[in-house]
Amino acid sequence: MKKILPLCFLLASSGAIAQTQPTSLKVNQQRIQTRLLELSKFGELANGGNGRVAYSKADQEGRAYVIGLMKKAKLDVTIDYAGNIIGRRKGRNPALKPITFGSHIDSVPNGGNYDGPLGSLSGLELVETLNENNVVTEHPLELIIFSNEEGGTVGSGAMIGKITPAALKSMTQSGLTIGDGIRSIGGNPDSLSKVVRKKGDVAAFIELHIEQGGILMTEKLQIGVVEGIVGIEHWDATIEGAANHAGTTPMNARRDALLSAAKLIVALNEVVTSHEGRQVGTIGKISAEPGAYNVIPGKVVLGVEIRDLSHDKIWTLFREVEARAQSIAKTQETPITFVQSSIGVTPALTAKSIQDKIIRAAKSLGLSYRYMQSGAGHDAQEMAQIAPVGMIFIPSVGGISHSPKEFSKGVDIGNGANVLLQTLLAIDRE
Amino acid sequence: MKKILPLCFLLASSGAIAQTQPTSLKVNQQRIQTRLLELSKFGELANGGNGRVAYSKADQEGRAYVIGLMKKAKLDVTIDYAGNIIGRRKGRNPALKPITFGSHIDSVPNGGNYDGPLGSLSGLELVETLNENNVVTEHPLELIIFSNEEGGTVGSGAMIGKITPAALKSMTQSGLTIGDGIRSIGGNPDSLSKVVRKKGDVAAFIELHIEQGGILMTEKLQIGVVEGIVGIEHWDATIEGAANHAGTTPMNARRDALLSAAKLIVALNEVVTSHEGRQVGTIGKISAEPGAYNVIPGKVVLGVEIRDLSHDKIWTLFREVEARAQSIAKTQETPITFVQSSIGVTPALTAKSIQDKIIRAAKSLGLSYRYMQSGAGHDAQEMAQIAPVGMIFIPSVGGISHSPKEFSKGVDIGNGANVLLQTLLAIDRE
Repeated sequence: MKKILPLCFLLASSGAIAQTQPTSLKVNQQRIQTRLLELSKFGELANGGNGRVAYSKADQEGRAYVIGLMKKAKLDVTIDYAGNIIGRRKGRNPALKPITFGSHIDSVPNGGNYDGPLGSLSGLELVETLNENNVVTEHPLELIIFSNEEGGTVGSGAMIGKITPAALKSMTQSGLTIGDGIRSIGGNPDSLSKVVRKKGDVAAFIELHIEQGGILMTEKLQIGVVEGIVGIEHWDATIEGAANHAGTTPMNARRDALLSAAKLIVALNEVVTSHEGRQVGTIGKISAEPGAYNVIPGKVVLGVEIRDLSHDKIWTLFREVEARAQSIAKTQETPITFVQSSIGVTPALTAKSIQDKIIRAAKSLGLSYRYMQSGAGHDAQEMAQIAPVGMIFIPSVGGISHSPKEFSKGVDIGNGANVLLQTLLAIDRE
Repeated sequence: MKKILPLCFLLASSGAIAQTQPTSLKVNQQRIQTRLLELSKFGELANGGNGRVAYSKADQEGRAYVIGLMKKAKLDVTIDYAGNIIGRRKGRNPALKPITFGSHIDSVPNGGNYDGPLGSLSGLELVETLNENNVVTEHPLELIIFSNEEGGTVGSGAMIGKITPAALKSMTQSGLTIGDGIRSIGGNPDSLSKVVRKKGDVAAFIELHIEQGGILMTEKLQIGVVEGIVGIEHWDATIEGAANHAGTTPMNARRDALLSAAKLIVALNEVVTSHEGRQVGTIGKISAEPGAYNVIPGKVVLGVEIRDLSHDKIWTLFREVEARAQSIAKTQETPITFVQSSIGVTPALTAKSIQDKIIRAAKSLGLSYRYMQSGAGHDAQEMAQIAPVGMIFIPSVGGISHSPKEFSKGVDIGNGANVLLQTLLAIDRE
């Protein structure tokens, strides 16, 4: 259903006298949905999902589509050296730093149509709504479509200066290295230092995103006020037993690495669930050698992950798991060693002042809400290193994401975009 | 050290009057060890182990070496259609069925030099000892070197008529199918029905073998009197959970297939160790999907094995495991299903009368002994379907087998071969 647009206009250049009250502005929900559908055609899969992986042909075509829309919305569009698409809109006060907002449009290989596109096209809708109502903000605005989020927040990572030369050589789902991929979308991996922003360069960053979990849906709430994006640490746990004949080795003479691994899997679950809080601990990978019915496993490797908003809590939990592991290792005579993976992520807290504005926006729109954490990584997590950030979630039906079944309802999309708009305007007013 | 041979000879054809007392006969331990060493050269690995897999060039060369020795020992050697090498020695009474004995000479891919060759070359030594002492038994004797034991007791299986046409098409470690492999060693897979022996065709079968476990060594005993070869049943247990984002799915909203699998692994161990007896239960295989740090496993498949001398006990244990699994499945909301594999093995009991003779032989030789079961499969297990069988174990150093480190001491080899000889003579006298 098409929304009726407010009829009172005022030229932005004529000086504000009788402008539409910004707090009553509403986005055009239908237009976001139409554009989500149009964007979904680039990289569309037979199963209804999307495989628009970064740097692929579909990604390049999707980017061209979005750039076209951004230009039509009168944004001053540039591609930075990291391949980020940046659309600038002037503010009244050129001395102020820009308020930034946006997300990404690349997808995981067998993903859906909302993770990334929602925040990107809602950001565009925000600009269109301001345009149509002739609202000029005090701050300059920047809609940023970050490059290659799903492959490790490459575009936002570049913006805070954390992409290493080694990372540029790593292979991506597109078949290109990150370096070559950046080139393929108009960037230049040799000039990444020029895209780096420092603390103070940006007034704020706000990202609207689908929840990617089932909390809002289960609790029948409309808006998630993200308190922070959890930190992630990974370890490989190696359990050394003795591979031996499963027929000739009595039960009491075994050093069964898989039995010890099983006890450790149960122990991790007990440790993580025995503490108050929203921490999660997962063992998602396991390999047992030699891997035959008739041989007692001599070696097992587990992939262990712990996430929490507090770095200290992650390590407190890990130390408990480690202690449990040492007890298992001793009893079972199967040494257990942990090696931390280098791909850990630091927790990123959102700004309390922006959380408050998100809540005020939700309340003013009559929407229910709750505080929550983001268990998944986002571009906002990188931006939090250089600016106050805010993050808004809307419900994911069934809590599903990174799947062709990923879906968010139109009404929730409209709600999220309106909260995004009102939050940005509140930051601008401050 | 070379043994001094008895000096009293009597021509076998002259009728027994003053023959060497058979109960005082002793094998030549050194000769067995020399031949074990010579045979080990065929398929020798750089790590000191042996890779003489059935039907390989090394297997063919090793067989030629053994056939040569058997002929020198005046055995009437034939290769049956299953590729079994059979060396016949006449007895006094042609109306009696043959006493058979032997083992195999093929190896696992990275195996040792004792599993199979010990029983084969000790059987040959038995014949040599009888020859040198001009002892003619009442029964005809047959030394059998079974083909392809390690690939599924193919030669002995053929002798009891259980090799199916489908089995002949299955691939072996040599790169040949079983059918082509049988051809490569002088057999004919199309004529396997002609090698089948029925109950009553064979007076007895005796096999000397290394223990392949550590019980005799741990208990410092010299001879194992095998009560039976355990039955084996295999199941694939599939645990169905819900693959989901490890960051955004709260602990209390998970259906973690790996956590349930871990509880099942622990439960199996508890069930198997909570019963009196020598049963063993093993989970040697595990796969978890999708298998990433950041995804809760949605599906796990376990390879479950239970062995015992009693078929009923195997199933009693399995029913308990199954009940525990259903309880875990219900609590964790992760359905668990078991599918039995078709490769189960029926338990095979040895003959009490032969066990008694093995014990008398051990006692007469001043050797310590104990009853035990064989946790591993053997040709004797197949032969038990058509004849009374006996099985003698000697210690494996470190309990190790199917490994380059597989080793049994010379003195134990001599002990075992002497028990084999005296047991055979006792059966013959009966």
